[in-house]
Amino acid sequence: MAPTDSRHTRSPGEAVMARLEELARFSTDRTALTRLYLSAEHKSAAKQTQVWMQEAGMEARIDAVANVVGRHEGREPGLPALLLGSHIDTVRNAGKYDGCFGVIAAIEAVSALHAAGERLPFAIEVIAFGDEEGVRFPVTLTGSRAIAGTLDPATLDAMDADRISIRQALQQFGCAPIDDPRVSRRRQQALAYCELHTEQGPVLETEKLPLGLVTAISGASRFAITVEGVAGHAGTVPMQLRQDALCAAAEMILAIEHLAGETDQLVATVGCIEALPGAANVIPSSSRFTLDIRSPSDRVRADAIGRLEKAFEEIAGQRRVRLDVQRTYDEPAAGCHPALIEQLEAAVSRAGITPLRLPSGAGHDGLAMISLCPIAMLFVRCKGGISHNPAESISTADADTAVRVLIDFLHHFDPSRLRAN
Amino acid sequence: MAPTDSRHTRSPGEAVMARLEELARFSTDRTALTRLYLSAEHKSAAKQTQVWMQEAGMEARIDAVANVVGRHEGREPGLPALLLGSHIDTVRNAGKYDGCFGVIAAIEAVSALHAAGERLPFAIEVIAFGDEEGVRFPVTLTGSRAIAGTLDPATLDAMDADRISIRQALQQFGCAPIDDPRVSRRRQQALAYCELHTEQGPVLETEKLPLGLVTAISGASRFAITVEGVAGHAGTVPMQLRQDALCAAAEMILAIEHLAGETDQLVATVGCIEALPGAANVIPSSSRFTLDIRSPSDRVRADAIGRLEKAFEEIAGQRRVRLDVQRTYDEPAAGCHPALIEQLEAAVSRAGITPLRLPSGAGHDGLAMISLCPIAMLFVRCKGGISHNPAESISTADADTAVRVLIDFLHHFDPSRLRAN
Repeated sequence: MAPTDSRHTRSPGEAVMARLEELARFSTDRTALTRLYLSAEHKSAAKQTQVWMQEAGMEARIDAVANVVGRHEGREPGLPALLLGSHIDTVRNAGKYDGCFGVIAAIEAVSALHAAGERLPFAIEVIAFGDEEGVRFPVTLTGSRAIAGTLDPATLDAMDADRISIRQALQQFGCAPIDDPRVSRRRQQALAYCELHTEQGPVLETEKLPLGLVTAISGASRFAITVEGVAGHAGTVPMQLRQDALCAAAEMILAIEHLAGETDQLVATVGCIEALPGAANVIPSSSRFTLDIRSPSDRVRADAIGRLEKAFEEIAGQRRVRLDVQRTYDEPAAGCHPALIEQLEAAVSRAGITPLRLPSGAGHDGLAMISLCPIAMLFVRCKGGISHNPAESISTADADTAVRVLIDFLHHFDPSRLRAN
Repeated sequence: MAPTDSRHTRSPGEAVMARLEELARFSTDRTALTRLYLSAEHKSAAKQTQVWMQEAGMEARIDAVANVVGRHEGREPGLPALLLGSHIDTVRNAGKYDGCFGVIAAIEAVSALHAAGERLPFAIEVIAFGDEEGVRFPVTLTGSRAIAGTLDPATLDAMDADRISIRQALQQFGCAPIDDPRVSRRRQQALAYCELHTEQGPVLETEKLPLGLVTAISGASRFAITVEGVAGHAGTVPMQLRQDALCAAAEMILAIEHLAGETDQLVATVGCIEALPGAANVIPSSSRFTLDIRSPSDRVRADAIGRLEKAFEEIAGQRRVRLDVQRTYDEPAAGCHPALIEQLEAAVSRAGITPLRLPSGAGHDGLAMISLCPIAMLFVRCKGGISHNPAESISTADADTAVRVLIDFLHHFDPSRLRAN
């Protein structure tokens, strides 16, 4: 039998999967994986990540906002860097792969270069961001915004449920003061940002493909919609005299589904609904529901929102109910850089995999990093499209394929092609 | 100016409205009208009602289940009686007219006969039932079931939120033991039961009519419907791969509304809805909603339920979601007696009012009384169709019309025509 505990006999995928298991032990909960930004377990995980970066030949440090940053120099010291990475914070009761996979896979790729004594015509930095999930504090992307130079200092006053501010938590964590000049990067020093991440959706599994090329991190808008009708006794008000707020909401929900279904590059979801007063024998006087609408194209999203607002008004008018539509969130799409996608796509093709392009419907650190440099993402197939759940899973074979494709991409990466675009 | 505080100068409508104001003072809440079955305030209201019955020349008593029963003898003592009445218990934060109007209007009608020294070829009994709303105990129609002889003695063990049983509450109220032979009536002694009640719906107001003739107390079925789909990330699951439980529920809700809208004599209502897990950015994995469906025709209701169950199954099949439909309540319709409707209708016509027939979508004591004798109901127009609410309102003019029509009906009532049907 092969000695499976020796790193030298392991495939890159096996090595990555073993480290992901190890990393999952840093959890606040005993029975579930929970690792929030700036928690003690986040610190332990960051220290372990730093050690792994050092073992891969990188100079590694934890920066002023608790990002772990490892640097692998290029053919000469101080060259502009290709940034790789993802995040090591988790949601509550998380899976082991969301975020962590991208960090560990990047370290594994650099480790391979290091083991082979390879120096590339650019530096590589691997970053393990600390606040992508935004669970502990009412803000998110603190780590990547700090690096991109777009972090609003007021953000650091945001408090968690125990009234501890990010600023206080950073001190407790042991970070250097936030004005550390090495936190935010100069544009000339950052060539691009590439992130490997689990898909968190079912497309690659459905298409039977291990990897997918992200076209953009979708822009998203959220709405709180209220319909006000007239309450009435379920037995005494004839159908034609009703102004039923829930029936109006139901028609709007189907209009949303219909529009998204017939529109390319658009998803739209009603996740919450309520009918008031909420008694089986009372016609609902009001109904509230949420709308989450996303597209890699801001034009497609804006157009769909306009159509839906018009459809809602028509439905409300026909049904003699009042309508209130509040936009509660709005984030533009972050398009991946075409030449960067092409270079990742070439590596995917060289691995014998049919390249598939797809948007990222979920948000990622790239949303912040795009302010600094071109971004791209490579998605890895996950089981059942499940994420943010202990059932989250990727296969060792897919992890292996992903790391090998990343290494191949690094070997071929040509920063000059980004400028040409 | 006319001395408005003298009963002799008041119209019957004014007298009724003044007493309804007086009765509304018997309330457990200071700022709202709440008078639950067997409460201290119910007892005070019952005593006051008994006094009013006595003032109207009736022999009046409070029976073993706290019904107030007043008897006006006919041309000779002991004749079979026409039963009139309604209930004096209320919901929490109630209006002043639901139930109470029918009791006070009946007393007012008997009072007019008494004042004129009239004796009819039948006795009249006015009954103020005590438990029509079913708010305090998890049972309802205790008073009318006892009189109809259909009260299950086990019902008396039902407990309120403070673990007081009906049996205990009856003792505290001071009622005679439940085996009092005068509680349940012999069929030969009960000619018919007629109830005046606010419509609790908008039909009469819409039709600009003060009164309406009830064809039947609708039968009702209630369902708890659960749809089970598959949760997913609102951004990452393409529309065509979704099994969205809420979209399926929305389609079912519109199917319900559509079927009820195109079916005569049917109303159907979804009053409660829930989507789980209930986050704006998660595709609902399950959705639960209620269905309340009513018709004066049991055949129409059964047919509609069959069609809806088929429609739900089709929608669930097309959308690949699981469906669970639980029937939680089922009560057949109680048809008003055709010859009794006709006699009431004749009185309405003699008052110069276009007779309109309509079902009672709400339940009433007639649901129990139909086991004893033929029933009928006369609806009085209410403002905005509102009931079970402090805004509940009827006009003095309509109250007056109702009492005058009732008196006229009593003058013309011919029990022999009921047997002919």
